[in-house]
Amino acid sequence: MHEGIWYIVVAVKDVAQAAKDYEEKLGLKASGPPLEAPQLGIKRVVVPLGETGQFIELAEPLGENSAVGRTLERRGEGIHTVTLAVDDVRRAAEELKARGVRVMEVGAQVFIHPADTHGVLWQLRVKE
Amino acid sequence: MHEGIWYIVVAVKDVAQAAKDYEEKLGLKASGPPLEAPQLGIKRVVVPLGETGQFIELAEPLGENSAVGRTLERRGEGIHTVTLAVDDVRRAAEELKARGVRVMEVGAQVFIHPADTHGVLWQLRVKE
Repeated sequence: MHEGIWYIVVAVKDVAQAAKDYEEKLGLKASGPPLEAPQLGIKRVVVPLGETGQFIELAEPLGENSAVGRTLERRGEGIHTVTLAVDDVRRAAEELKARGVRVMEVGAQVFIHPADTHGVLWQLRVKE
Repeated sequence: MHEGIWYIVVAVKDVAQAAKDYEEKLGLKASGPPLEAPQLGIKRVVVPLGETGQFIELAEPLGENSAVGRTLERRGEGIHTVTLAVDDVRRAAEELKARGVRVMEVGAQVFIHPADTHGVLWQLRVKE
């Protein structure tokens, strides 16, 4: 079903500041300036992890009613989602639903409800 | 410095139940029964992610005063740490400290303080 952990989304209050900190403190440089993704309700940067194809996404909520904004409110800054690469996201979602797992489909995005995963918001996505 | 995301530790209240749920609901089977790691203050199982070499560790605190126990108390079940594979953990730690980053060394384990990473407890470890 899956090809492992692909990327992690970190909810942050100020994505420009977070990108600066990741570069200056951790030596991890974003691939470009923060860009708005209104359909996801976030402003974000991608921080590649070397040549692995993996990355960290730093995401600032654009509005009050975004999923990232709710994570920030509830828990403060920290991990919002972990994305597992899968070869077929529809099939994976159907298999999970057949097992009684709560799958959340937001547009083309598929998430597993944290209540079924002991607190982790896993996203499933086909690797690009 | 790093070779990407290696594994994720999930703090859970009951590792046997969590392992059962990951297998039955998510189709992710632990590599063996829960084992105690008293030096880490946890009882844990490893849940391999296919053939990727990556895994999820489900960790239940053994005592009240463990780091995993504090995560559980503060935030409930969910991600405790994300481990980045590095080629030289000592050198990585020294580089971080030279940049003024708070590095926590617990025995042979090296962590970056979440206050310097916008809320993520990154562990650095040489891949085995």
